[in-house]
Amino acid sequence: MERIRLGMVGGGEGAFIGEVHRMASRLDDRYILCAGALCSNAKRSASSASKIGIPKERSYSNYQEMVTAEANLDEGIEVVAIVTPNHLHYPIAKEFLASGIHVICDKPMTIDAREARELIDLAKASNLMLAVTYNYSGYPMIRHARKMIELGELGKIRVVHTEYTQDWLTNPIENSGHKQAHWRVDPEKSGIGGCIGDIGSHAYHLSCFVTQLEAIALCADLSSFVEGRKLDDNAHIMIRYAGNAKGMIWSSQVAPGNGNNLKIQIYGDKGGLVWQQEQPNELIFTPTNKATRTLLRGSDSLSVNASALSRIPIGHPEGYIEGFANLYREIADILLIYRSGKTPISEEILFPTGQDGLDGVTFIEAAVKSNNKDSIWVNL
Amino acid sequence: MERIRLGMVGGGEGAFIGEVHRMASRLDDRYILCAGALCSNAKRSASSASKIGIPKERSYSNYQEMVTAEANLDEGIEVVAIVTPNHLHYPIAKEFLASGIHVICDKPMTIDAREARELIDLAKASNLMLAVTYNYSGYPMIRHARKMIELGELGKIRVVHTEYTQDWLTNPIENSGHKQAHWRVDPEKSGIGGCIGDIGSHAYHLSCFVTQLEAIALCADLSSFVEGRKLDDNAHIMIRYAGNAKGMIWSSQVAPGNGNNLKIQIYGDKGGLVWQQEQPNELIFTPTNKATRTLLRGSDSLSVNASALSRIPIGHPEGYIEGFANLYREIADILLIYRSGKTPISEEILFPTGQDGLDGVTFIEAAVKSNNKDSIWVNL
Amino acid sequence: MERIRLGMVGGGEGAFIGEVHRMASRLDDRYILCAGALCSNAKRSASSASKIGIPKERSYSNYQEMVTAEANLDEGIEVVAIVTPNHLHYPIAKEFLASGIHVICDKPMTIDAREARELIDLAKASNLMLAVTYNYSGYPMIRHARKMIELGELGKIRVVHTEYTQDWLTNPIENSGHKQAHWRVDPEKSGIGGCIGDIGSHAYHLSCFVTQLEAIALCADLSSFVEGRKLDDNAHIMIRYAGNAKGMIWSSQVAPGNGNNLKIQIYGDKGGLVWQQEQPNELIFTPTNKATRTLLRGSDSLSVNASALSRIPIGHPEGYIEGFANLYREIADILLIYRSGKTPISEEILFPTGQDGLDGVTFIEAAVKSNNKDSIWVNL
Amino acid sequence: MERIRLGMVGGGEGAFIGEVHRMASRLDDRYILCAGALCSNAKRSASSASKIGIPKERSYSNYQEMVTAEANLDEGIEVVAIVTPNHLHYPIAKEFLASGIHVICDKPMTIDAREARELIDLAKASNLMLAVTYNYSGYPMIRHARKMIELGELGKIRVVHTEYTQDWLTNPIENSGHKQAHWRVDPEKSGIGGCIGDIGSHAYHLSCFVTQLEAIALCADLSSFVEGRKLDDNAHIMIRYAGNAKGMIWSSQVAPGNGNNLKIQIYGDKGGLVWQQEQPNELIFTPTNKATRTLLRGSDSLSVNASALSRIPIGHPEGYIEGFANLYREIADILLIYRSGKTPISEEILFPTGQDGLDGVTFIEAAVKSNNKDSIWVNL
Repeated sequence: MERIRLGMVGGGEGAFIGEVHRMASRLDDRYILCAGALCSNAKRSASSASKIGIPKERSYSNYQEMVTAEANLDEGIEVVAIVTPNHLHYPIAKEFLASGIHVICDKPMTIDAREARELIDLAKASNLMLAVTYNYSGYPMIRHARKMIELGELGKIRVVHTEYTQDWLTNPIENSGHKQAHWRVDPEKSGIGGCIGDIGSHAYHLSCFVTQLEAIALCADLSSFVEGRKLDDNAHIMIRYAGNAKGMIWSSQVAPGNGNNLKIQIYGDKGGLVWQQEQPNELIFTPTNKATRTLLRGSDSLSVNASALSRIPIGHPEGYIEGFANLYREIADILLIYRSGKTPISEEILFPTGQDGLDGVTFIEAAVKSNNKDSIWVNL
Repeated sequence: MERIRLGMVGGGEGAFIGEVHRMASRLDDRYILCAGALCSNAKRSASSASKIGIPKERSYSNYQEMVTAEANLDEGIEVVAIVTPNHLHYPIAKEFLASGIHVICDKPMTIDAREARELIDLAKASNLMLAVTYNYSGYPMIRHARKMIELGELGKIRVVHTEYTQDWLTNPIENSGHKQAHWRVDPEKSGIGGCIGDIGSHAYHLSCFVTQLEAIALCADLSSFVEGRKLDDNAHIMIRYAGNAKGMIWSSQVAPGNGNNLKIQIYGDKGGLVWQQEQPNELIFTPTNKATRTLLRGSDSLSVNASALSRIPIGHPEGYIEGFANLYREIADILLIYRSGKTPISEEILFPTGQDGLDGVTFIEAAVKSNNKDSIWVNL
Repeated sequence: MERIRLGMVGGGEGAFIGEVHRMASRLDDRYILCAGALCSNAKRSASSASKIGIPKERSYSNYQEMVTAEANLDEGIEVVAIVTPNHLHYPIAKEFLASGIHVICDKPMTIDAREARELIDLAKASNLMLAVTYNYSGYPMIRHARKMIELGELGKIRVVHTEYTQDWLTNPIENSGHKQAHWRVDPEKSGIGGCIGDIGSHAYHLSCFVTQLEAIALCADLSSFVEGRKLDDNAHIMIRYAGNAKGMIWSSQVAPGNGNNLKIQIYGDKGGLVWQQEQPNELIFTPTNKATRTLLRGSDSLSVNASALSRIPIGHPEGYIEGFANLYREIADILLIYRSGKTPISEEILFPTGQDGLDGVTFIEAAVKSNNKDSIWVNL
Repeated sequence: MERIRLGMVGGGEGAFIGEVHRMASRLDDRYILCAGALCSNAKRSASSASKIGIPKERSYSNYQEMVTAEANLDEGIEVVAIVTPNHLHYPIAKEFLASGIHVICDKPMTIDAREARELIDLAKASNLMLAVTYNYSGYPMIRHARKMIELGELGKIRVVHTEYTQDWLTNPIENSGHKQAHWRVDPEKSGIGGCIGDIGSHAYHLSCFVTQLEAIALCADLSSFVEGRKLDDNAHIMIRYAGNAKGMIWSSQVAPGNGNNLKIQIYGDKGGLVWQQEQPNELIFTPTNKATRTLLRGSDSLSVNASALSRIPIGHPEGYIEGFANLYREIADILLIYRSGKTPISEEILFPTGQDGLDGVTFIEAAVKSNNKDSIWVNL
């Protein structure tokens, strides 16, 4: 068993997603977290590192220091996980890629499409991996859904309805010291998308990932319901996919009663599928004119794609961390190929990469543009 | 106990909604079905009437004959239920109103807004009732939701998400003798709306009824997924309500796994509500930042509005027929006022009337217009 | 269309189940309610009758008066529905049967098995129908479950788990004027069973009805949790059916959060079934080692047994009243046979009859006996 | 951050629960797995160890070898996880405890109560920790339920209904090479309980853990439905707890459609609680006569007991591995106290210990005894 040497930028005390990345990296024991620049503040960075067992000498005050030092170590990190607020993804990823270190970047990958393209080009030129954690694509039943659609079990896809609703921004908590809220509603740190970037882009990615349909245009109506909020906190989007499929995306962070309700419904002429993130072990499948059946993670009849990402038997629920860990597991497999001096075949890569990162940013830009132009259709 | 004398046009053998109206009228024993012109064919009309106990002498070959005869009887019908395909609603309603007979009309009320306005004017001029069976407004928990919103329990309404999805038109069954499907996809009989008229208008009505918000504009993307189908079978709509509330309406008849999935979600700054027609005895309520609670028909804590429309205790499910019957019950109360020579105060009328019928037709027209103009916003 | 002439004893103002019987009788328009002795008090009896449209001359002060008068009318009632507290079922049923009038009796049929046997014998000797409203057997999906089991789709039945839980008697509301509670916890009016008689007997009946297994022995632990309550309000029962099947029955009226939660689970070697009264339109079926499927009332694939008892399409929920009405519909069919001078073939009768009434009483007696003897097994 | 040095006996290739223990130990990064005797076969033991990163020199051929070696190392393991079939728990635990090494033992802890008592005494005499992985007690919402009951939010507990149903042993798969099934139905390896030991003991433990009620007697009806199976595969149990509370436990491994359905319902005079393992993030709470509310892991209003064991926000599901990991996390805290030379205060220990292990074995013995004596009540 060979473990990947992992570093992290961001994810210090008070952060949320950094710890998720760490748990995801540990679950299958495929990584060693060796180095980090966890906070923008040097002192808190060191104390955060100490708490999670990063050796003192490899806890850095900032990412520039880290990239320089690690790139010069014999056994420096092979990959860095970037888990900072959005606006820092680009400069950090750029530095690490430029120094020959693979990148796992949280989403949205960059603030704009230009930056995204630049990172893709840089990764390609350097023969490095650039992964983006649209983590919902890591759920086993999502993989099963994708396979079913690929095999034609739904027939020709007609309608894709995706909603991602939360309630934590119903009130203006950004004004009372809520760290996670604060940067998410700040255009300086989040970019031009609020809710649309934070969760809408997940919904968008999932709809494309599962159906393997290319999105071609959208028409958006964005709102900032909370007074004084500069970015959208609710988004209504109509969308068109290649092959005459159509869809809606609704994302909201002001919908009381919705914790993290990502739900996708896909309908073709041969059947329908429904999946909800809060019950991720189930996939509801209705063949046209037949009884609805509940497909379950862990059951014998799942596709290899799903069962390969399942750890425990049916009825023993796996959740968000496990889904996230599935991306880390697949990334580890790919990094071992790189380590062996080979370049992975891109068709073998199922986890989201730079292209998905770019697509996400393009989606955000198109939604804002449509909204600004009275909801005209904007190409993707 | 005084029973209302009821007549029916349409609803002969093979029909669906006519029998629903009859069961609804019987449940609370407030009506006597005395007369009918049940089919367009005289012979089938007579045989249908005989089967349901309408006296032979008051079974008519057509509605013209019926209206003439009944208007001249001492104890002729007081109200007629019109349950034909859409295109016949207008001429029939017109005749009965012109002869002094109240009208209960199925939805959509007419083929276009001009006809709808004419019926409203006629009813007003004749001091007659014109009810339209947007029946989902009769469910007790919908009444409770409306009351909660009226009392401000959700605060200012921000988002209204309504979906009404079915699957029975996934395949082109209209081509193989399915009577219900056949007329619904035929513009001659249904008008310019397919799915949007058949069920989308229900969703639209419900969203306005529950929130008491006026809809002001919409933006639509309609599809006819089944080859050769002339009317829409799937509709994506973004909508704006007065007071800066926004919503989506998704209606589909090509979504396998959806029997009659009418679902509405309403979010304000103080809380959220979710209701699903297939589990109509439940209303899911989340006060902002508090635990979600399940409100149940039959519980002691419901508003008078809801409990007045509830017949049996909690846990003993009431369903579609009971909800429909609630409109009939309220209509009977109003008709007794008319019978006594008074005119009901319109504020006391909760069941849908001509204005709701007009609003529904306006909605259909606006959706088609928006769709035809590349999804521009169209005022309602 | 020929309607059955129906009378009613009990069911005056403030009653619950009487109005249910009336709605059930009206829904399919197969009955005319012609006569009644609705209350034990003559004045309230008359006022109750007037409110529900029973002609003054056929509203009686008591059942003795009623049976005498009706038996002497040319067009007297053909059948009486007995909806009084339990202890009155026997004397009333006896009188009507003795006078040649068919009987629909609420459950439990009598206070003890001796009375039950006497009524059965009397009905048989008089060639009259004796129906007992174990109404949950009227739900379409219960009929479908029964048919599936009959056809062997579950293989050999091994386990039957039935629970019927309510919460309305959690507190001693019988002491504060709650009419329905008051007689149910009074041994004088309810007999020796409290919860076990009121709802446990429903659970027991359903388990036998669906599986068509004969129950052979039980072992019970009854409780009266509410201080001062004389009858049981919670019952734990282990049960054995013929063919080595085993089960549990749990009935409780002190389980907060349970409105009317009747739930049955049936497991054989080829599959499992789950049905819940509060979602009666669904039947959950899992063939062994296959995906679980949701069978729905109104779907095309249901057995004739289920679809014959279904009125409206899939997704349009039918509920408790409709299920109850199914028994009334089947009873009407049988009464027409009697009216024509023939005797129905008992195999054609699916609704519960006197034998089911006796079985229910036997169950109650056995449960009390087992409980009194430290939960020994008692034969049924 | 200090990590605990962990060893493992059992859990080699093809095992299930060993890998669960390992993931649980990794999730919060509180352990280093240093040593193991993973298989009974030396060669497979070595290859299993190599695959999971145990150094070759600390991979042992058998537990005797391991205990000797590790006890003599300066930095030998501090605790061993025993994840073998049941019959080996006792001899292995005994050896490690005798050598001064703490023990985490899977359940049931031993084959009989005598062995269990011996281990408890040995641990106490040696001042060592003996933990037993009744892992369902680690779920956050179970901890919250326990706290609510402790605080009296349910009032006096009356009824506890626990079911644990699975379907994987519906067919005799033990005869066709299914390793997990094979030892579980073999009295030599499992002891006298089949289903009752494998999962019934979990249900029993959970009922006592959540309510903090002592179980005092039970009455059991066990079955072996699959032909030729020597141990029970379905158990019906009535149970009595201290304070006049009563319950049922139903455990089955022959119930098609049930993956790992552990469900507990608890009713007191002030309210009811329902929790299902397959939806572990929810706890359904009904205060008497109020609306049911859904309490969610991750919500702000949870007790410290629950939120301390929660890693990610509301709506991001945690599952079985996380629940299991909660025990490992609490165990690590306690082991650090031991490491510091102190003895933990037993009141601070929430994870199951030797006493719970003994109680589980006592439960199995009592159930078998009652069953063998025609279901008489047997004291616990």
